[in-house]
Amino acid sequence: MSNPSLLILPGDGIGPEVMAEVRKIIDWFGTNRGLQFDVSEDLVGGAAYDIHGKPLSDETMAKAQEVDAVLLGAVGGPKYDDLDFSLKPERGLLRLRKEMDLYSNLRPAQCFDALADFSSLKKDIVAGLDIMIVRELTSGVYFGEPRGIFEEGNERVGINTQRYTESEIERAARSAFELAMRRNKKLCSMEKANVMESGILWREVVTRVGAEYPEVELSHMYADNGAMQLVRAPKQFDVIVTDNLFGDVLSDCAAMLTGSLGMLPSASLGAPMANGRPKAMYEPVHGSAPDITGQGKANPIACILSFAMALRYSFDQGDEAGRLEAAIEKVLADGVRTADLLADEGVEPVSTSEMGDAILAAL
Amino acid sequence: MSNPSLLILPGDGIGPEVMAEVRKIIDWFGTNRGLQFDVSEDLVGGAAYDIHGKPLSDETMAKAQEVDAVLLGAVGGPKYDDLDFSLKPERGLLRLRKEMDLYSNLRPAQCFDALADFSSLKKDIVAGLDIMIVRELTSGVYFGEPRGIFEEGNERVGINTQRYTESEIERAARSAFELAMRRNKKLCSMEKANVMESGILWREVVTRVGAEYPEVELSHMYADNGAMQLVRAPKQFDVIVTDNLFGDVLSDCAAMLTGSLGMLPSASLGAPMANGRPKAMYEPVHGSAPDITGQGKANPIACILSFAMALRYSFDQGDEAGRLEAAIEKVLADGVRTADLLADEGVEPVSTSEMGDAILAAL
Ligand SMILES: CC(C)[C@H](C(=O)O)[C@@H](O)C(=O)O
Ligand SMILES: CC(C)[C@H](C(=O)O)[C@@H](O)C(=O)O
Repeated sequence: MSNPSLLILPGDGIGPEVMAEVRKIIDWFGTNRGLQFDVSEDLVGGAAYDIHGKPLSDETMAKAQEVDAVLLGAVGGPKYDDLDFSLKPERGLLRLRKEMDLYSNLRPAQCFDALADFSSLKKDIVAGLDIMIVRELTSGVYFGEPRGIFEEGNERVGINTQRYTESEIERAARSAFELAMRRNKKLCSMEKANVMESGILWREVVTRVGAEYPEVELSHMYADNGAMQLVRAPKQFDVIVTDNLFGDVLSDCAAMLTGSLGMLPSASLGAPMANGRPKAMYEPVHGSAPDITGQGKANPIACILSFAMALRYSFDQGDEAGRLEAAIEKVLADGVRTADLLADEGVEPVSTSEMGDAILAAL
Repeated sequence: MSNPSLLILPGDGIGPEVMAEVRKIIDWFGTNRGLQFDVSEDLVGGAAYDIHGKPLSDETMAKAQEVDAVLLGAVGGPKYDDLDFSLKPERGLLRLRKEMDLYSNLRPAQCFDALADFSSLKKDIVAGLDIMIVRELTSGVYFGEPRGIFEEGNERVGINTQRYTESEIERAARSAFELAMRRNKKLCSMEKANVMESGILWREVVTRVGAEYPEVELSHMYADNGAMQLVRAPKQFDVIVTDNLFGDVLSDCAAMLTGSLGMLPSASLGAPMANGRPKAMYEPVHGSAPDITGQGKANPIACILSFAMALRYSFDQGDEAGRLEAAIEKVLADGVRTADLLADEGVEPVSTSEMGDAILAAL
C-alpha cells in the first residue's frame, strides 16, 4: 500500500517559516512512528502569483484534489494589496476551499493552561476553555451570486449575495452534530433569523437535523448575542455551528479569547473520497503576519497543531495526534515561548526553529 | 415657541419598566432645568402586534416621523417567536429605522470606572475604555433585495442581499468622520474587502471621504481581525465605522467588553429636519430581557443614558447630558447596583425604580 499523500502549500509571509517546522515534525513521525507520508510542495497566494500570475495554478488545484490532505501556511501581504480582486492571494485559498468542497471548517478555541495568563480575559473566565466552532466554508456571502460593483444611475453599488440551500446547511449541521456526539453533546447554532431569511432557513434545517441526534442538546442564538456571550462567558459553549461569514468573525473572536492566536489550528473537511478519507485542508488560524516575516519570530505551533488535526481527522491517528499535542503542552509547561507568547519580561523568546526543535525533543 | 416633542415607545419585556424611570428623569429636567418636552407614548413590537396585529401601526410610524426624537425601550419576546417574519416585533424596529432613514447608529462602548471589575476582561485592558462605533443602519443585508426563502429544484434556498450604494456609504462615513473630529481624530473602518466586493466599495468610499478630513487618522481593518482586536486591545480604537451587519455583531462584542450591557445607550440619527434637528431615535443596546421582565430587576441606566444622548444630539444640550451622566457616575461610585451589576456577594441589589430614584437624588 502506498503512503498517504500530503500537499504542502506554505504560501506567503511567515507561512514558509512555520511550515519548515512542520516538515521536521512530519519527518519525525516517519522515522520514529512508522508514519510515512508522500510529501509534495507547491505554491499558493502571492507566492503563486509571483510565478504564475495567479494565486493558484490549475496544476496545483488538480494536485490538491488528488492528495489525501493539504497543509496550508498562510496567504496575503501588503505587496499584493493593489491587485485586482480576482488575483488577490485570498482567492487562491478560497478556490481551494470551494473546488475541494470543504464545507466543514473546524476551529477549536482552546486555552492552554500554561498560557491562560496571556489572555486579555480574566483567568477564571478562560482557563480550561475548549470550544469547537464549526463554520460552513463553501457557501454564503463568500460565494453567492450576483456579486460585484455595478453602475446604478449615476453611482456605483457594491453587491454580495448571502445564499444557503437546505442541503448546504444540512451537511454543515450534520458535521457539527457528529462532532458534538464525540464531545459533550451540546451544540449552539448561531444566525440572525430575526433579520435574515437565510437565517430562518438555517435555524429550521439545523433543528430538523437535530431530530436525528436526540442526545445532543441543541440551542439557537442570534449571532450578535453569540459575540457577546463568547466575551462574557465562553465556557458556556461546547460546539458552535454557524455560517461562513458569521463563522469568520465569531471564530476569530473566540480565537482571541485564548490570548494566543499563534496556537490555533483549523481543519477544513469535505465529503469522503474513494479511499474513505475526507477531502481535507489544514491551516493555522493566524495569517501571514508580514510585520514579522523573515525574522524567525513566528510561532510554528498553530501550524504544527494543524498537522495534528490532519493526523486525527484524515489519517485516523488520534493517538499520534495526542502524542504531538502532549509534546507541545510539555514544551509550554517548561516555559519555552516564542515572542508572541511572552507576557513576562525577563523571559527570552525562542526562535521559530528553536520552538520546532523543542517540540521534537519533547516527542 | 412650542416645546420639543418626544415619542416614547416602551415596547416589550423590560422596555416599559426602564422607560418608566426615564419618564421620571424627563420630568425632572422639565421641573428643574426648564427643559419641557411634549411627551407622547405609543406601541411598538409585540405590544403593538397584540393590539394592532402588526409590530408598528401606520399611525405610530407617522407620529415618529413628526416628533423631534423617538425614545424606544426594547422589542421582542418568546411569545412572538412563531409569528411570521413580517409580523415579528423586530420588524417594527426595523421599519422605524428604515422609514425615518436613520443611517447613522452611534453605539458607545464605555467602561465606567466603578464597574471596570465587572468586565470579563482584565481591568487594565478595559479601564477607561471609550469607543464609539458608528454602524450604518438603513442598508446592507438588513434591507437588500432579493431576499426570502425560495424553491429551487427540489429544495429551498434562503437568500439575502448585501447591497451598498456609494451615497449610502458616504453619508455613514461622513457622520463617523464628523464624530472623529469632535473626539480623538482617529477612525478605523471595518469590512471584508478581501472577500466581498461591497467591502471593496466601502473601503474606497470611506477613503475618499477621508480626504475631506485630513486631520483624522484613518485606518482599515478586516472585520474578523476587528473582532480579534476588540478582544485583544480595545483601547487601540476611538471611532469605528462599519456596515449594518458587521456593526450589529461588532458593537455587541464591544458592548460586552465593558461588562455592563445594562449601561449602554445608542443613538440612531438621520438627515436634518426642517427645524435643523436630525431625525433621531434613541434606545438602549440591551434587549427586552424576557427572563427578568416584571420583576423590578432591570437596569434603567442604558435607557436613561439614551435620553442623555437625545439631550446631546437632538437638543444641543450637551451640558445637561453631562449633568445626567455625572449623576449616574456618582450613583455608581456610591455603590448603588441593580442585580446585573453585582459581582460582589454581600451587596444588596436595588430595584429598577430605586435606581431611577437614586439617579434623581444625585441630580
Ligand atoms: C484570508 C481570508 C480570505 C479568510 C476568510 O475570510 O475566510 C480568513 O480570514 C479565514 O478566516 O480563514
Ligand atoms: C433586534 C434586532 C433586529 C437588532 C438588530 O439586529 O439590529 C438588534 O440586535 C440591534 O442591534 O439593535
